[in-house]
Amino acid sequence: MTGASGVGKDTIRRAALLDLPNLFYSISATTRPQRSGEAHGKQYYFYDRTTFEKMIADDDLLEYAEYVGDYYGTPASPVKTALDNGQDVLLELELVGARQVKHTYPSAVMIFIAPPTLSELERRLRGRETDSEEKIQKRLARAREEIKAVTEFDYVVVNDTLTDAVADFSCVIRAERARAKHLTLQDITSFLQEF
Amino acid sequence: MTGASGVGKDTIRRAALLDLPNLFYSISATTRPQRSGEAHGKQYYFYDRTTFEKMIADDDLLEYAEYVGDYYGTPASPVKTALDNGQDVLLELELVGARQVKHTYPSAVMIFIAPPTLSELERRLRGRETDSEEKIQKRLARAREEIKAVTEFDYVVVNDTLTDAVADFSCVIRAERARAKHLTLQDITSFLQEF
Repeated sequence: MTGASGVGKDTIRRAALLDLPNLFYSISATTRPQRSGEAHGKQYYFYDRTTFEKMIADDDLLEYAEYVGDYYGTPASPVKTALDNGQDVLLELELVGARQVKHTYPSAVMIFIAPPTLSELERRLRGRETDSEEKIQKRLARAREEIKAVTEFDYVVVNDTLTDAVADFSCVIRAERARAKHLTLQDITSFLQEF
Repeated sequence: MTGASGVGKDTIRRAALLDLPNLFYSISATTRPQRSGEAHGKQYYFYDRTTFEKMIADDDLLEYAEYVGDYYGTPASPVKTALDNGQDVLLELELVGARQVKHTYPSAVMIFIAPPTLSELERRLRGRETDSEEKIQKRLARAREEIKAVTEFDYVVVNDTLTDAVADFSCVIRAERARAKHLTLQDITSFLQEF
């Protein structure tokens, strides 16, 4: 899932995880300092730059990027383990990271969370009262850029009312699980044999 | 939607129609005699053979077939009107009819409703206490044939527990509505202009 800051990604994701069994949320790694109330392995995996750069060198990250001097990335190993265990994996990624993951896992389903309008997104960002005016303008500029890539995505969930957005998002995952193309040859064989 | 007699298509469809706005269920036409309690335009559109054959000749049917001496088919005009009005159209079809409609509307989404097992389907057919042994065997033979075509479908909803099957079915329609490929050029343009 990809979408602008303030569009409601965290809320939608948390609701979907409660709603759907067998869904694994991948926690990102970062070099940014741990804030009070945050725990290693909860909000992020917190690493120092040396460790993070070794992970990059060892190809231990599915995707990574540097923002304002800090690294952010997706550790590959928990994702692989979850997939091996037959779980679906939910990643929350910037556009660039989403493209990297799609490259590694072409069957990945890309969901874009869009605000109903840019002015509504602006209203929500101001409502959080956490960001400076400069940061709000930067976030809006980025949202304007990312929305241009909407056609690269498989699904667009518009977060107008939260209840509908959560239902749409959960339904996308539920429906994807019901896709006939995901039936393996073994599924079909055993299905037909029983018939 | 396609699936064997007794698999629960009617129940799933009725629940989905209550659950989802803007979904139009297309009523079939038939030449079989109207039974007591049935109304023209409710269970079926009831026509005599001459009228039905004129509809075939005039290309007024999306698909049709003859079973045990009676015609069954989908009137094209209500479907076209609903689509023109921006509604999604739900058709309940035999495999052959589903293939015909897919040919006319390649963007049609094909959903197969499968029983968890053939023996469970047999149990349900016997539970209805409406069919002769011969009819039950015919229905099971047909189910065995149709399941072989499961890979032609986009989605497979297994009706094991009804609540899950209804949720899966409704979610398929909800998710399909959120597909980015359904965004028109106009949608995207107006979306980007607002941004």
